[in-house]
Amino acid sequence: MTEFEDSGMLPIEARPTDWLPTDDRRARMVLSRVAEPGHETLRELVAEHGAVAALRWIVGGVGKAPTGLFPERVSAALLADDIGHTERVRARVLIPSDPEWPVHVEDLACPPLCLWVWGGQSIDLAAVTANSVAIVGARSSTAYGSQVAADLAVGLSEREYAVISGAAFGIDAAAHRGALAAGGTTIAVLAGGIDRLYPASHASLLRQISEQGAVITEQPPGVAPIGSRFLLRNRIIAALALGTVVVEASLRSGSLNTARHADTLARHVAAVPGPVTSMQSAGCHELIRAHRATLVTDVAEIVDLVGRIGADLAPQKRGETRPLDALDPADRPVYESLPIRRFASVERIASAVGQSDLTVRAALGRLHSEGLAATDGLDGWRKAVTSTQGGKG
Amino acid sequence: MTEFEDSGMLPIEARPTDWLPTDDRRARMVLSRVAEPGHETLRELVAEHGAVAALRWIVGGVGKAPTGLFPERVSAALLADDIGHTERVRARVLIPSDPEWPVHVEDLACPPLCLWVWGGQSIDLAAVTANSVAIVGARSSTAYGSQVAADLAVGLSEREYAVISGAAFGIDAAAHRGALAAGGTTIAVLAGGIDRLYPASHASLLRQISEQGAVITEQPPGVAPIGSRFLLRNRIIAALALGTVVVEASLRSGSLNTARHADTLARHVAAVPGPVTSMQSAGCHELIRAHRATLVTDVAEIVDLVGRIGADLAPQKRGETRPLDALDPADRPVYESLPIRRFASVERIASAVGQSDLTVRAALGRLHSEGLAATDGLDGWRKAVTSTQGGKG
Repeated sequence: MTEFEDSGMLPIEARPTDWLPTDDRRARMVLSRVAEPGHETLRELVAEHGAVAALRWIVGGVGKAPTGLFPERVSAALLADDIGHTERVRARVLIPSDPEWPVHVEDLACPPLCLWVWGGQSIDLAAVTANSVAIVGARSSTAYGSQVAADLAVGLSEREYAVISGAAFGIDAAAHRGALAAGGTTIAVLAGGIDRLYPASHASLLRQISEQGAVITEQPPGVAPIGSRFLLRNRIIAALALGTVVVEASLRSGSLNTARHADTLARHVAAVPGPVTSMQSAGCHELIRAHRATLVTDVAEIVDLVGRIGADLAPQKRGETRPLDALDPADRPVYESLPIRRFASVERIASAVGQSDLTVRAALGRLHSEGLAATDGLDGWRKAVTSTQGGKG
Repeated sequence: MTEFEDSGMLPIEARPTDWLPTDDRRARMVLSRVAEPGHETLRELVAEHGAVAALRWIVGGVGKAPTGLFPERVSAALLADDIGHTERVRARVLIPSDPEWPVHVEDLACPPLCLWVWGGQSIDLAAVTANSVAIVGARSSTAYGSQVAADLAVGLSEREYAVISGAAFGIDAAAHRGALAAGGTTIAVLAGGIDRLYPASHASLLRQISEQGAVITEQPPGVAPIGSRFLLRNRIIAALALGTVVVEASLRSGSLNTARHADTLARHVAAVPGPVTSMQSAGCHELIRAHRATLVTDVAEIVDLVGRIGADLAPQKRGETRPLDALDPADRPVYESLPIRRFASVERIASAVGQSDLTVRAALGRLHSEGLAATDGLDGWRKAVTSTQGGKG
């Protein structure tokens, strides 16, 4: 294990490793138990050595594990339990090498190791989330806010955007319900395990979402949806969607956290205004005043925002004409599917946009010649980071 | 009259001129009858030759008057009537040489020739408007909009800002009433003559305004408040106030015209959001979306906007720290009283800020050395036009 010696682990004792999985999927499931999401050392180990080798080192490593890694928590029995719980609720586990993996989450500083997915049998999670909008907001919404959230979800569904939210009371539930009523696709991202439906009274709503979309989480089965896990969950919502719309938020609402993640990820952030006499709109007004969100009043304005190619690279130019607008419309979905940080394979991009590898390769060639796509030279592609003056094209 | 020959008037016949007034005040009253407000040739003639000479040339000139000038309309009898009507309603006529003249209107491309003022016995119109905010909006306001307008007017009154509006139904009336209720000063600007109170059912409200502030107009007595005169009136409201707040406006509301004037005059423009389901807030939302207004939700945010020195010169930098912020607080009212286009005399500035000529001269010296004030070398002063990078200081 000499290659890990510079990671600061001191030899004290060794744990048994003969039970450790040798496949990426189960290795990632076990790793999900080793640390809370967002652990940077774990992310680096997995990125550098792969999940199987990283897990083997962390669990089998002799010595004290780095802060926040808990190899003593995992075991063959726990893995068997997790597999059992996953199967019992008819969920599946997605990993980055799956064609259905929503490649946009790779824009996160710490992307999820894997995703538990309940439902989504009839949808391709990668394709659906590549054309999606998050609607989030206050749990204690007003009748006005709930109505607006539902109306926006209906309108987005009619325009074939998936609606992503967090299944919470208030705005979240109204958004999911609007999409369901319109026959659209909606994704609920949970803060706990896939078998820990929260809030409990939304069990029926979540079942409908699983049938007409998907319920997903990066947390292993049984994990309680508490405290900081809601904030971790919010980053997944922000990363999955092209843009996040905040419909009612008090000044301390958790949905402002989702908006912040979306902004960090260069996603679009929009906020719906409301009466200045309503504290449930104060957070939205503050986002707009601080120029951290675009004021939107209807679906057309949301689509105008998230549907503008390349604008996610230049938030300060949102709404203006850019050279990117001159792109061949056929190249646009390919461009939009490119991650901004890590490189994605042609296969994964093709899967995300639902086109053949050949078509995608041709589009990537054009995007590359226009300075919009960058390659690692090994068949991996991502967005080229352009200046605020726009791309070369 | 050779000096006027290049103005394009052709000699045909001469009108009697022996009745023409020889004082600036009455000359301006007569000139108010010669053209509708906003006549550029008239403005140029008055600026170049003074009201008395301009009037003598226009009325006595042999030939066809320039388009939009109607010298045949005026007469000694009409002047006597106008003076009579003015006295009958206990109004007075202000002209630019009066210390009480609100010097900010000189920022207009076509400032008023004179102003009829009803009431305002206990106030100095120049001083009051130098610290004022306009609240305008929909005639068909909702209960929400009327309440917000009244609340903002109360708050501004408590902070000793005068509230300027147009005495119309809806938002205008709510703003005036809020200021009256709070014991504040409020100014109503009419679109017709000072004796043509409009709307008629607001006669009692206008009387209260005249007692606790002033009712003013640039239109001579008897002029009907119709059509384009409301748009002309709006430019006076925008010019008088430090900033204009739009509270409810449909997409075609006349208050958007006031906001446009305010923007053109480098005044602050703010808009109050409301439910996206209300068409009466659609104009406000559009102003905010187009970055033509700052979203405001309470009085503190309005004061934060209009109370920031120098920001009126650099709307694109609003809300940011500028070198101007480092100014001596004592110099600030002087700086704010400076016109942006024409030069004002030290006496007029001193009157506007309510300080002695000596104090104002000292402040002007400091502002000049900091690159914030410009002089014509003849004791006239205005704001120096600074770059967006701020002043030299």
